[in-house]
Amino acid sequence: MTPDEFKKLGYQLVDWVSEYLTKVGDYPVCSSLQPGEIKEKLPAQPPIKAESMADIFQDFEKVIFPGMTHWQHPGWFAYFPANNSPPSILAELLTAGLGAQCMIWKTSPAAAELEEVVCDWLRQMLALPKGFVGVIQDTASTSTLVALLTAREKATAFQSNIRGMKEPLCVYASQEAHSSVEKDVKIAGYGKESLRYIPTDENYALIPELLEQAIEQDKKQGLTPACVVATLGTTSSGAVDPLEPIGKICQRHKIWLHVDAAYAGTAALLPEKRWILEGVEKVDSFVFNPHKWMLTNFDCSAYFVKDKEALIKTFEIHPEYLKTGVDAVVNNYRDWGIQLGRRFRALKLWFVIRTYGVEGIQALIRKHIALAQKFREWLEADSRFEILAPTHFSLVCFRLNDGRNEAALNELNRIFHDRINQSGQIFLTHTSLKGKYTLRLVVGSRTTEEKHVQQAWEIIRQAADALLGGGKS
Amino acid sequence: MTPDEFKKLGYQLVDWVSEYLTKVGDYPVCSSLQPGEIKEKLPAQPPIKAESMADIFQDFEKVIFPGMTHWQHPGWFAYFPANNSPPSILAELLTAGLGAQCMIWKTSPAAAELEEVVCDWLRQMLALPKGFVGVIQDTASTSTLVALLTAREKATAFQSNIRGMKEPLCVYASQEAHSSVEKDVKIAGYGKESLRYIPTDENYALIPELLEQAIEQDKKQGLTPACVVATLGTTSSGAVDPLEPIGKICQRHKIWLHVDAAYAGTAALLPEKRWILEGVEKVDSFVFNPHKWMLTNFDCSAYFVKDKEALIKTFEIHPEYLKTGVDAVVNNYRDWGIQLGRRFRALKLWFVIRTYGVEGIQALIRKHIALAQKFREWLEADSRFEILAPTHFSLVCFRLNDGRNEAALNELNRIFHDRINQSGQIFLTHTSLKGKYTLRLVVGSRTTEEKHVQQAWEIIRQAADALLGGGKS
Repeated sequence: MTPDEFKKLGYQLVDWVSEYLTKVGDYPVCSSLQPGEIKEKLPAQPPIKAESMADIFQDFEKVIFPGMTHWQHPGWFAYFPANNSPPSILAELLTAGLGAQCMIWKTSPAAAELEEVVCDWLRQMLALPKGFVGVIQDTASTSTLVALLTAREKATAFQSNIRGMKEPLCVYASQEAHSSVEKDVKIAGYGKESLRYIPTDENYALIPELLEQAIEQDKKQGLTPACVVATLGTTSSGAVDPLEPIGKICQRHKIWLHVDAAYAGTAALLPEKRWILEGVEKVDSFVFNPHKWMLTNFDCSAYFVKDKEALIKTFEIHPEYLKTGVDAVVNNYRDWGIQLGRRFRALKLWFVIRTYGVEGIQALIRKHIALAQKFREWLEADSRFEILAPTHFSLVCFRLNDGRNEAALNELNRIFHDRINQSGQIFLTHTSLKGKYTLRLVVGSRTTEEKHVQQAWEIIRQAADALLGGGKS
Repeated sequence: MTPDEFKKLGYQLVDWVSEYLTKVGDYPVCSSLQPGEIKEKLPAQPPIKAESMADIFQDFEKVIFPGMTHWQHPGWFAYFPANNSPPSILAELLTAGLGAQCMIWKTSPAAAELEEVVCDWLRQMLALPKGFVGVIQDTASTSTLVALLTAREKATAFQSNIRGMKEPLCVYASQEAHSSVEKDVKIAGYGKESLRYIPTDENYALIPELLEQAIEQDKKQGLTPACVVATLGTTSSGAVDPLEPIGKICQRHKIWLHVDAAYAGTAALLPEKRWILEGVEKVDSFVFNPHKWMLTNFDCSAYFVKDKEALIKTFEIHPEYLKTGVDAVVNNYRDWGIQLGRRFRALKLWFVIRTYGVEGIQALIRKHIALAQKFREWLEADSRFEILAPTHFSLVCFRLNDGRNEAALNELNRIFHDRINQSGQIFLTHTSLKGKYTLRLVVGSRTTEEKHVQQAWEIIRQAADALLGGGKS
């Protein structure tokens, strides 16, 4: 490919992306293709001869594109968002063009130093305590694994790394904690049986008294409590575990306190939401994902720790072929996490924060929260709906409830949910809260405006009409 | 940013990338900035107000760019390569524009099915056995961790995930295995003391007889051998552990055999290099990185397993909020590794393989290997140089040797190495082989032609002249 061909193709793809971002709302949010339909259209053998980009791009449009789920769709109300944005896309293009592998300072000083700076920008934006230092990981799954490993090492005087997991260590999280906690507990060698699920209150927040009881019971039995994972903004309902009392308990018992704020951490950009961080000075590590609700292309997970030395001591390794003359005075981020190789992820964060400014990001988050609140008010005004959890952020949990028994309600809501998604115009996912089939509507797409939430409400109301008859307020 | 502004900026960045790839050889390979110099030029506080892309891009050019290490430089002979390529960059642009998070089939059917197809293309390209199935991980560090975790679970009837690491398990790798093996052994809870480093022969390849002795000794002591990690193309010298005898030993003792072919796996694209895979049918898992030597932007690590069910059983987790109606009939790759969230990495592989064709990639690899061979011959013809390892692929290990004692030789070669890199035109890294300070020259950059290897030889010879006087052949 000559430079001129590259340029021409590059312009075409820039045009394509621009048009895609403008028109993404015109597509069905989810593909209607069935499993195997895309695979069938792809050759089973690799091409021996070179093919033209014209052919490849045509196949992209004909074969691949119809099988995409459109995460940037204004009707995306599913899971949590994974925003991209124009400046972030431009930064990803530069990152790909530079093709730098940023494992250590030497292999790209600018990447290492920019990462240090933008992580501290994020710390300030969220009003995390001074002294917390940040590093970019790929996902919150990884960040929480890094926290559990550091906690494991601290609890065993860094001997688990040497001798293996010989001591009986325990981990604590609420019943509503993300599935990655269980997965990470397994990976780190604790074993699932060492994970204590602490019951939650009526708002799905961890009950600190029950946490302390569980800790004391384990200690009585000769077990060592190693880590508590608190969640700000649980996946199912957006619940907020109270950091202040949890932090006091962890300090009292000398337990590593990790906070999973993957989605809701971004809300701490807003002074009016900063109450979620009350007690954060007692926290040992904290993760939130700019790739979720902060306009930065996946993947980009911001992980903060108070005790940088413990983190590094957990992961550092110094083979001869990675030694450089400046190792003592720089951040070699390979020692701050699991992978050796690292992408230049700081660049897109820098582009995003500067393009929007803190105020611009705040305005977007505030708008999403207000839209979710509005949607919630519409539900509240219609007696066919039941709201199932508080709406601290931009997630609303609800279901139809006409008084039939719980099993029948679950079946009704499953059908209701299917009908809503069959519209193709919006996409909601579900969860289970106290055994109740629960629909989740998350406002978080960069492209979602009030009219889209109104349209969602229209679709949801019509689906309710079809199943239950017209609404009464 | 309006669509028109995005387009205009996009064109500018496409032009910039095109020019960068054309002129990358004009820059010093490594930045000459000192630690802290970039940080000093960046504001310590995040911007409150939005800034223009013109300002941001100007800062990119003035502040960030001078601090980049140029991995795509034709004078890049360091570490291993991390190739990008025009089609891969274009695919990354599309991936960023689509902004899809591909954790499960439902969240992008095309990404899941394309991943299945291109992984099988890779399997065929490397002539890996039928029945091996592939998945894209981020790095070989992660792939090897995934292998060690699956091996751990198989060795304990999947009880370590439940009860923790209670059994005394052992892992085996050669003394020359990559540092990620030790790091991963720690992360997975085995403990470093469970890792047996098996001595290597005069070519730095694992000695199978010593492997079996170590296994038998451990078994006698009541320990359970869980995993052997063999390396094809070690980092220090490119050594090749013999899979056939190692595989037989692993089968005899029922031990998971993982192969780390991160760099050299790509060489198996060439029929004349396929001898490295002799015995691969006895292997349980295999990793190589298309992001190293196969023109695909970092990150992209291809991980293959024979027993897919064991892999999934190790990692699967099924919270209500991730369940979909098609889970039984699709590949949900979140269950094939550590992270829940996943980028659409298959797209760039598909673009690369089709743009170059298998023959195009083979031609590039063959060229690199021939250039390394040529460089080796130049060294061999100059009596001041000593070659320290076989050159199976495109890595040449060498040093100056004028007969002084080993400590003095190490000091001499350290100075020699510094002088070479100070040219700014080429970048070599070092390792230690049997205690000897060893310079490594790896030919692997997409932009490296014969003239660049000649230039490297010129620089190296002049540095030798300056230290030892003119060469004698």
